Amino acid sequence: MSGAAASPGAAGGRFIVLEGGEASGKSTQAARLAERLGALLTREPGGTPLGERIRSLLLDPAPSPDPSAPGGAGGLAPRTEALLLLAARAEHVAAVIRPALEAGADVVCDRFAGSTLAYQGWGRGLPVAELRSLSEWAAAGCEPDLVVLLQVPPEVGAARLAARGRAADRMEGAGASFFERVEEGFAALAAADPDRWAVVDGDGTVDAVADRVAAAVAERLAARAPGVT
Amino acid sequence: MSGAAASPGAAGGRFIVLEGGEASGKSTQAARLAERLGALLTREPGGTPLGERIRSLLLDPAPSPDPSAPGGAGGLAPRTEALLLLAARAEHVAAVIRPALEAGADVVCDRFAGSTLAYQGWGRGLPVAELRSLSEWAAAGCEPDLVVLLQVPPEVGAARLAARGRAADRMEGAGASFFERVEEGFAALAAADPDRWAVVDGDGTVDAVADRVAAAVAERLAARAPGVT
Repeated sequence: MSGAAASPGAAGGRFIVLEGGEASGKSTQAARLAERLGALLTREPGGTPLGERIRSLLLDPAPSPDPSAPGGAGGLAPRTEALLLLAARAEHVAAVIRPALEAGADVVCDRFAGSTLAYQGWGRGLPVAELRSLSEWAAAGCEPDLVVLLQVPPEVGAARLAARGRAADRMEGAGASFFERVEEGFAALAAADPDRWAVVDGDGTVDAVADRVAAAVAERLAARAPGVT
Repeated sequence: MSGAAASPGAAGGRFIVLEGGEASGKSTQAARLAERLGALLTREPGGTPLGERIRSLLLDPAPSPDPSAPGGAGGLAPRTEALLLLAARAEHVAAVIRPALEAGADVVCDRFAGSTLAYQGWGRGLPVAELRSLSEWAAAGCEPDLVVLLQVPPEVGAARLAARGRAADRMEGAGASFFERVEEGFAALAAADPDRWAVVDGDGTVDAVADRVAAAVAERLAARAPGVT
């Protein structure tokens, strides 16, 4: 045992996050990468029974039988949405991610803190620095070793969503400018922390993108292995 | 219109919170006080359709059909619980409390930020200063004009709970020392901010306590009226 590490990833398994906008392919690629590494695959919001219930709250916030009830059928306040996502994160880290990393397993997670900053910060307009501090509190110091950002041209994302016949949910009903801000946010996060973030082109076949993701992970995690400087 | 006020209570209706431990009588007294003042009565967690769903999540966090699912039937992580309560607060303030205050209505709320600090801070051991800052973020600057803390001797609270035949829920299953810490927390909060907090003896008949609460409110809110120093 070396000295106490702030991140469990430093002593145990490696924590790899896939981030990206709608239809960037990150769920598919997270599954591929987890299979390739023999890692635990999980996702946010979700990843725990509580998280899945929070996910359903976010997608359908107010199925009240009384349309005049306070809060009504309208959207959630941006701070509410952020805090629900952070609650899901806190549970996910405490119940799933941290125990797996501490047991030495690698963990691949479909979305993590970067999505909070991009969607709730750049997208909804909440202050990014405040969100970052809240997210760190929720994760109690658990940080990814590597974040893979999948980028696809907007028209590719739109075509993929249309091909899925995907019903507009609350997020996806938020409009094109919302998603442009989210993409901007992801790009800014990756640019500001190039040691932790790797940008991968998500355009192409699933196999082609999977190879790119695997190459990025191998390169970055090799460079971060103990003893290599 | 005077200059912009940080708290809507300063310009519109007055925001009065009832706080106290289990079976302190605060729900009954909140209803009495709201009736007496013609105020909007609301409660936390709850007060919105989303808040009521969060309340039910907190009381029954994991009704998963799969007992081996991650997170399982165990309790929620303390940070999860705190963030869920804060999500309920954010929605409650944005959808109910702030609009009512801004429209000039008085609001009486059964629990607010004091409960977060007492239960999640003193009770669960999360850092109180961090919780305070999170709670302020959730409430986006909305603070009570007056917090009435109802205190009852522990044996009175226990007898009231027993008389209700109240099933142990997750909070109430947490044990006597938990509730002692919560009571300590409430007392410390009231002692640290005597301008905002009024401690009222909650032992006695509903009518007797209601008269004490009304007297405390009249005295404190008269002293806070514009023009009186």
